[in-house]
Amino acid sequence: MSAKQRPSEDSLIARFFAPIAGEAALGLKDDAACLRPKPGHDLVLTTDALVERVHFLPEDAPGSIARKALGVNVSDLAAKGSEPAGFLLSLALPDDWTEDWLAAFAAGLGQASRDFACPLLGGDTVRARGPLTLSVTAVGQVPSGRMVPRTTAGVGDAVCVTGTIGDAALGLKLRADPPWAAALSLEERAHLADRYLHPQPRHRLAAALRDHASAAMDVSDGLAGDLAKMMRASGTSAVVEAAQVPLSSAAAKAVQASPSLLDLALTGGDDYEILCTVPEKKLDSFRKEADSVGIALSVIGRVVAGQDLPVFRMNGLERRYDVGSYQHF
Amino acid sequence: MSAKQRPSEDSLIARFFAPIAGEAALGLKDDAACLRPKPGHDLVLTTDALVERVHFLPEDAPGSIARKALGVNVSDLAAKGSEPAGFLLSLALPDDWTEDWLAAFAAGLGQASRDFACPLLGGDTVRARGPLTLSVTAVGQVPSGRMVPRTTAGVGDAVCVTGTIGDAALGLKLRADPPWAAALSLEERAHLADRYLHPQPRHRLAAALRDHASAAMDVSDGLAGDLAKMMRASGTSAVVEAAQVPLSSAAAKAVQASPSLLDLALTGGDDYEILCTVPEKKLDSFRKEADSVGIALSVIGRVVAGQDLPVFRMNGLERRYDVGSYQHF
Repeated sequence: MSAKQRPSEDSLIARFFAPIAGEAALGLKDDAACLRPKPGHDLVLTTDALVERVHFLPEDAPGSIARKALGVNVSDLAAKGSEPAGFLLSLALPDDWTEDWLAAFAAGLGQASRDFACPLLGGDTVRARGPLTLSVTAVGQVPSGRMVPRTTAGVGDAVCVTGTIGDAALGLKLRADPPWAAALSLEERAHLADRYLHPQPRHRLAAALRDHASAAMDVSDGLAGDLAKMMRASGTSAVVEAAQVPLSSAAAKAVQASPSLLDLALTGGDDYEILCTVPEKKLDSFRKEADSVGIALSVIGRVVAGQDLPVFRMNGLERRYDVGSYQHF
Repeated sequence: MSAKQRPSEDSLIARFFAPIAGEAALGLKDDAACLRPKPGHDLVLTTDALVERVHFLPEDAPGSIARKALGVNVSDLAAKGSEPAGFLLSLALPDDWTEDWLAAFAAGLGQASRDFACPLLGGDTVRARGPLTLSVTAVGQVPSGRMVPRTTAGVGDAVCVTGTIGDAALGLKLRADPPWAAALSLEERAHLADRYLHPQPRHRLAAALRDHASAAMDVSDGLAGDLAKMMRASGTSAVVEAAQVPLSSAAAKAVQASPSLLDLALTGGDDYEILCTVPEKKLDSFRKEADSVGIALSVIGRVVAGQDLPVFRMNGLERRYDVGSYQHF
C-alpha cells in the first residue's frame, strides 16, 4: 500500500484509538487531554519507551507489544502506590505497517487499558524511519504526600517481592531453544514465554503499598540490580536468602536442570513485580491485604545498615551481583 | 566508544538531566515524578514525537532539536490556554551518540525549559536501533473547566493568528538553495532558517486565550490545513483574506520573488503560532492583552456557517486548500 493510499491520521485515530479513550481524552478530537485531578491527590507521572529488538521482538503479536508498553508503565505507577488515571502513547510506525497490524495493536491496547483501568488520554503517531518505537507516559493519582518513594527503606525492614522472579528472563532465553528446555513440559514453557510477553502489573497492590511499604519500586531490570538501586538510594544494604526468592514451578524446574540459571533468574529483567521494604510491625497486615487482592507476597530478606551491594545467601555462600552500575542502554 | 565503556544511564541522568529537573521530579532519583496539582485546576496533557529526517535534520544542532521537541509541546499547551507544569522526555538514542552530543542536547533542553517555564519531570533513555527519536509529554495546568477547545468556534467570530505564518516552511525550503534565495539578504535567510529550527511557543498568551478565544489550536501542520481542522471540528467554515495573513518581511520578499511560495506559506508546517477564533465583542480586549505580553496578533478572517473547506480570498479569486484530510505520517 503506497503512502498516498494510506488513511489519514485522523481516520486511524477515529477507528482504532477513539474507542479506547477515556473521558478526559475528549474523544481524541482536541489537541490535548483535560484531566480533572481528584481533590487532595498528587499526580504520579512516569514514561517508558520500548524499541523493537531491544524490548520486544518483531515476531511478537502486535497486541502483546501494546500490552507490554502499557503494562510496564502501569507497573511503575503501582510501585509508587498510585491508581492509574490514564496514559498517552507515542507510536513511531515503520513504513511497512499494515492496517491489520494496527487493528491488532489497538485491540491489545484496549484490552490492557480495561484490565489495568488505565484509559487512553492522547497520543501521537509518526513515521519511524527505523524499527517500531513506542513511548508511553502513564499518569497515576495518589492521596497527597502518599507516593511511595524508592529512597526510604529502613534498616530492619523486611524485603518483599510479589509474584515470581525470573520467569520473563527464562522465557526470553527459551526462544533460543536451549538444552534445559527439554526438562520442561509444554505448559511450563508456555508459562515462561507468556511471562516475558505479558507483564502483569500489580496495580491492585497500590493501596496496600501506600499503607505499609517504607520504600518500593518495580522489578524491571532484574531483582539483584533493582534491589541494589533501591538500597543505594536509601543509603542502606540488604541480606537476601536466595532460597526465599519466589520461583514459579517452571522456573524452579529450569534451575534444577541447569543450576546456573538461578543467576539469570535473579539478574534478568522484565519481571514487573513489586519490590518493597516493609517495617516488621506492618508485615502481617501487608500480607493480609496482598492476599485479599490475590497477589502472592514473599519475604526474601532484610534491610541492613551499610553501603555495600546486597548479599544473596545461597547454600552457605554469599554472593553479590555487581550488575546495577553496569546497566547500559 | 564501545558499549562497555559507556557511562551508565544513572550517571548520565545525574550529569545531564538532574540539573534541569523541577521539584516534582524528585531529583530524577525515583521511578516517577510526583506533581501536586494547583487546587481548582485541570491538567492538560499532550504528547508529540519527533523523528530524525521527518521532523528535524541530522545536521541540526542538538540544542535546537531539544528546543524544538519541547517547544512544539509547549505550543500545544499554550493553545489550550494552559500554563506549563513540566514535561517528560523519551529519548531513543542511536548507537553512535557521543557525550558531547548529549551535553549539547541537555544544555539546549535546559535553556528551553527555563525559557518556557516548563521543568523536566522525568524520562527514559533507550537504544534507538534506528534514527534519533524523541517523544515529549507536556503537562499544563488550567483553571478548572477553562481549557480552550478546538471544537467551539462560533459563526461570526474573528479568525486570528499570532506572529507570522510560513517562515518555517520557507526556512526549510531554503536549505535546498532555491533560486528565490538570491532575493533575500543574509539576515532574511537567517530569520527564516531560525524559524524552522526554533519554534517560539506563545505560552505567554495562555491567559488571554482563556479569557477571549472561543476556540484555539496551534498551527503545526500548516495554516490552511489546521484552520480546516478547527472549522470541521466546530461544524463551521471560514473566509480568510490572504492579504491579512501576517508574513515576515523575509517571507514577503520570498513570495514577491516567487509568487507560488504564498501557497507554501499558507500550507507549510512548523509555524507553531496560535490560531484562534474570538467573538467580535472581545476582540479589542484580546488585542490589548496580546500586546501587553508582546505577541503580535492579526485578524485574518471570519468564521461562517457551512461545512465547506475555508476559503482564502486573494486578488479577487477564491481558493480552497484541500490539505487537511490528506495529511500522512
